[in-house]
Amino acid sequence: MSVFSAESAVQRRDDSGVYDTALSERWAIGGKPNGGYTLSIIARAACEAVGAEHPLAVSAHYLRAPGSSAAEVRTEVVRSGRRVSSARATLWQNDKPQIDALVSTGRLPSGPPEWMSRPAPDLPPPEECVPPGTEKFQLEIFDRVDLRIDPATSPFPKFTGDPTIRYWFRLHDLSEPDPFSLLVAVDAAPPTVFNLQRYGWAPTVELTVLLRGLPEPGWLRCESTTRMMSDGWFDEEASVWDATGRLVAQSRQLALVGERPKKD
Amino acid sequence: MSVFSAESAVQRRDDSGVYDTALSERWAIGGKPNGGYTLSIIARAACEAVGAEHPLAVSAHYLRAPGSSAAEVRTEVVRSGRRVSSARATLWQNDKPQIDALVSTGRLPSGPPEWMSRPAPDLPPPEECVPPGTEKFQLEIFDRVDLRIDPATSPFPKFTGDPTIRYWFRLHDLSEPDPFSLLVAVDAAPPTVFNLQRYGWAPTVELTVLLRGLPEPGWLRCESTTRMMSDGWFDEEASVWDATGRLVAQSRQLALVGERPKKD
Repeated sequence: MSVFSAESAVQRRDDSGVYDTALSERWAIGGKPNGGYTLSIIARAACEAVGAEHPLAVSAHYLRAPGSSAAEVRTEVVRSGRRVSSARATLWQNDKPQIDALVSTGRLPSGPPEWMSRPAPDLPPPEECVPPGTEKFQLEIFDRVDLRIDPATSPFPKFTGDPTIRYWFRLHDLSEPDPFSLLVAVDAAPPTVFNLQRYGWAPTVELTVLLRGLPEPGWLRCESTTRMMSDGWFDEEASVWDATGRLVAQSRQLALVGERPKKD
Repeated sequence: MSVFSAESAVQRRDDSGVYDTALSERWAIGGKPNGGYTLSIIARAACEAVGAEHPLAVSAHYLRAPGSSAAEVRTEVVRSGRRVSSARATLWQNDKPQIDALVSTGRLPSGPPEWMSRPAPDLPPPEECVPPGTEKFQLEIFDRVDLRIDPATSPFPKFTGDPTIRYWFRLHDLSEPDPFSLLVAVDAAPPTVFNLQRYGWAPTVELTVLLRGLPEPGWLRCESTTRMMSDGWFDEEASVWDATGRLVAQSRQLALVGERPKKD
């Protein structure tokens, strides 16, 4: 079992649809569990609840910012179908709903796509790319996630003026990508708006991920970008291609620009 | 009150968070209420439940295909905040959950954006664009929605080979756009995959809409496009700009290619 699988595992409590979990401090940024990491835990619980192999579409509204400690995922199956089954799944901690999600599940395709609008972007090889962050930031998650940013798109040491970041993603334990680690990949890079000189904690309000295919082994190639920043809000969409160049995940989030973390 | 407001209205039943509504046959395609139209009803109920002015992010999983008849929206407020309040909202009909949604609400910005990645696309003027459909399709909704497709992108009379459709949108009663009609605008055009020669009913599994600004009066300029079609699945994302050229809505959906409607 990979380190990621172990640290994002859920334990069925009983017949009530509740799953116990522990949010690991190893997948946090500045003490707060990463949003993609918590989403992978929620998706695992939803898939177990409906008895499905893979998440297909995961929509999450981040109500509060949970801490790195015990939590539970409360699930409710709302439809069991031939091709798609769906569940509600909410991460609870300290007697409050923290992240509310809807998860549609099924079986991801593994063959080549019939049609793709554009190929995976070009990036310099991983060894010519740079890990994120500076000494100013606590970046616990990067002990687990090996992220390599194309230097031409990196907001460190200086913002680029273009809110696009291209990066390689794999797990430090070298376990191969799966649909759950794709949920981490879409939200692992620094906020795109760092490249517009808007540094600071950028809380996600909503994040939806579409899973499009079972990733083949190897590095994931990722691109995140922003269409508009307005009145303190920005969107951030990420695309993930596997080692064969197939699009395997698409995400979009609505987030707030550069706030400091605060107590709920 | 506009025809749209009247036909997408919700009535608070009591203190239980339930809202009564009627899905109008006038906003249907082939007898089935349009997915953006039903989403506008769900969003209205959620905004009323939390006491907020505008939806900011609406994520919906389409479990079943409701009919054009009475329905109810069951809401539950999960967070009341200064800037964002959130609710769960589920459309029920015939004692079954039909569409499950999460809605984050607040107040939409009305000023100019600080940053936009690209301007609104060029389209020929509305009078040089064409309404959708052919005699083969029942298109009830187009008595309510005035949709004009750029002929260069129209899948009628012949598919183009590029799953991108650019269109103008306004309501036939000439009422001005609001955040709720934006939810209709993102899902009103023919499926993009018609342009890949994949005709037929394309059921939405998941649809998320980010509202980005209060639209100014006038025609909405829209573009829908697809990144990948694979194993019968396709994504469709729509962008909507108001008459001043500001991006006011972004959506993405996961849908199934060309199925015939069937009973649940």
